[in-house]
Amino acid sequence: MDLITVEDIHAAAERIKGTAVRTPLLPCTWTETDRPLWLKPENLQPIGAFKIRGAANAMARIPAADRARGVVAYSSGNHAQAVAYVARQFGLPAAIVVPENTPVTKIEATRAHGAEVVVVPITDREIVAERLVAERGATLIPPFDHPDVIAGQGTIGLEIAADLPDVELVLVPVSGGGLLSGVATAIKALCPDAAVVGVEPELAADTAASLAAGRRVEWSTHDRARTIADGLRAAPSELTFAHLRERVDAVVTVTEEEIRSTVATLATRARLVAEPSGAVTTAAYLHRAADLPRGRTVAVVSGGNLDRDLLVTLLS
Amino acid sequence: MDLITVEDIHAAAERIKGTAVRTPLLPCTWTETDRPLWLKPENLQPIGAFKIRGAANAMARIPAADRARGVVAYSSGNHAQAVAYVARQFGLPAAIVVPENTPVTKIEATRAHGAEVVVVPITDREIVAERLVAERGATLIPPFDHPDVIAGQGTIGLEIAADLPDVELVLVPVSGGGLLSGVATAIKALCPDAAVVGVEPELAADTAASLAAGRRVEWSTHDRARTIADGLRAAPSELTFAHLRERVDAVVTVTEEEIRSTVATLATRARLVAEPSGAVTTAAYLHRAADLPRGRTVAVVSGGNLDRDLLVTLLS
Repeated sequence: MDLITVEDIHAAAERIKGTAVRTPLLPCTWTETDRPLWLKPENLQPIGAFKIRGAANAMARIPAADRARGVVAYSSGNHAQAVAYVARQFGLPAAIVVPENTPVTKIEATRAHGAEVVVVPITDREIVAERLVAERGATLIPPFDHPDVIAGQGTIGLEIAADLPDVELVLVPVSGGGLLSGVATAIKALCPDAAVVGVEPELAADTAASLAAGRRVEWSTHDRARTIADGLRAAPSELTFAHLRERVDAVVTVTEEEIRSTVATLATRARLVAEPSGAVTTAAYLHRAADLPRGRTVAVVSGGNLDRDLLVTLLS
Repeated sequence: MDLITVEDIHAAAERIKGTAVRTPLLPCTWTETDRPLWLKPENLQPIGAFKIRGAANAMARIPAADRARGVVAYSSGNHAQAVAYVARQFGLPAAIVVPENTPVTKIEATRAHGAEVVVVPITDREIVAERLVAERGATLIPPFDHPDVIAGQGTIGLEIAADLPDVELVLVPVSGGGLLSGVATAIKALCPDAAVVGVEPELAADTAASLAAGRRVEWSTHDRARTIADGLRAAPSELTFAHLRERVDAVVTVTEEEIRSTVATLATRARLVAEPSGAVTTAAYLHRAADLPRGRTVAVVSGGNLDRDLLVTLLS
């Protein structure tokens, strides 16, 4: 299977300029001296998550003749917002297929970016999205299972390497594996001595199990839905799993309580509102020190979309 | 009176590299189309406030022969943390004089950065600081009333001009006026068509009153202490007031309720934890549209240090 290269990521970086924010590394003042920590705050991207990087790279690659026919995505989460936001930036029509249990606020937020929202029974999402693609000649923008999406997310790794060339450990959340595949590709090419470690909730630890088994191990949707980290309930595809096997050093897991308390820590100590999925890497830094290499560490804070009520609960 | 120049600010930018974070402009997705908004998130600086810029520039200017004798500051707020943090970065001893009513958590935070903390009755702060300077040959780092401090804060304006050259309105909190003086100097030099507007709480609106009167109007400490924006209770000096008269287009005021609700808006919509003082500019954007020029707007979010309990209260 062909893996993406760092050249693909360099090309993606050119394409997403002006759409994605070039986020800084934020040094933390509250860390152990032999393993200083920097945060990569992707929660500060326009729709509150790294997802716009991959969406922008994939959309920039659509041939001119196909652009007017628009894009389609199926997602109820950050990917939906990302595709809607980037499509408007690029002047493309977008249709987002969402399951009927999606909260109204999320549907309204997606519509506010100018996208058409198609509400369907949850089991019909892929079928309806594919039908829209066929009927309209639109382009499907998948959330992670595509080389252009992986390369777009990998631009985070380029920026880490540029800002902290002697980084020793990069912590990345893992769900479908697009973000981790992309970041690992960039870091292993540019900072070959750095370790790249994925982090997932222990209640959705299918990737850790898969890497241990050397093949993709399926966890049920029901099991993966138990974690509060609702952005980390997907599982790697063949494509992303091939990247992870080749380029990721390890995957560690964190508990629900560690995730919840770290949301509060990030708000009070780093002044960042992170969603639970975005907090897992800092949770690993704080609670899995024994399982991680020491040294200069970067934690990718992948997103910041959570309900105000949940934020208050986690802070109280 | 000599005002600082944009050349002073360019020189400051070179000096503070590696100490202050180069913060990005964050485009907001929830704004009116004819006046798009970007946030300048200075709450993400290492100690949670823009103050490290001025402190770093002032410390970098200390002659080599005087460095070992260290620095002194009097402050109970963000300036204390900033001087302590930067002094450690620069390898200089630091003594911070704080009033005896300072919360223990703030004293501990300052000590955690390696500074000596000298607790005194509130009326003795300046006297004790000056005595330490005289006894030790140390250098006083004032919070705003110094050209090097103003030039350091002005680097925020350089970054805004570089990232958004066609900016039309820059909103800046005003207290002692160092930040506003510096940013206005940079913006008026580099983006002469842009308006620079200060924002202060209506309960501490001495700067608005002073600009209207054409001379510094004193409000009592007691009156200025009423606002929740505890970083905006100081008043301009002769030096900063001279900059404001020359280079600031207007000062607008916001109410306590507007400040409080905007802290919640920034947390939920921009994923930033801002302290009340840091939220006033976004509050002005949201609630003083009629008093402001329309067009591309930048709001400086100056800091993010507030107690967890207050954050929960403002979010609830």
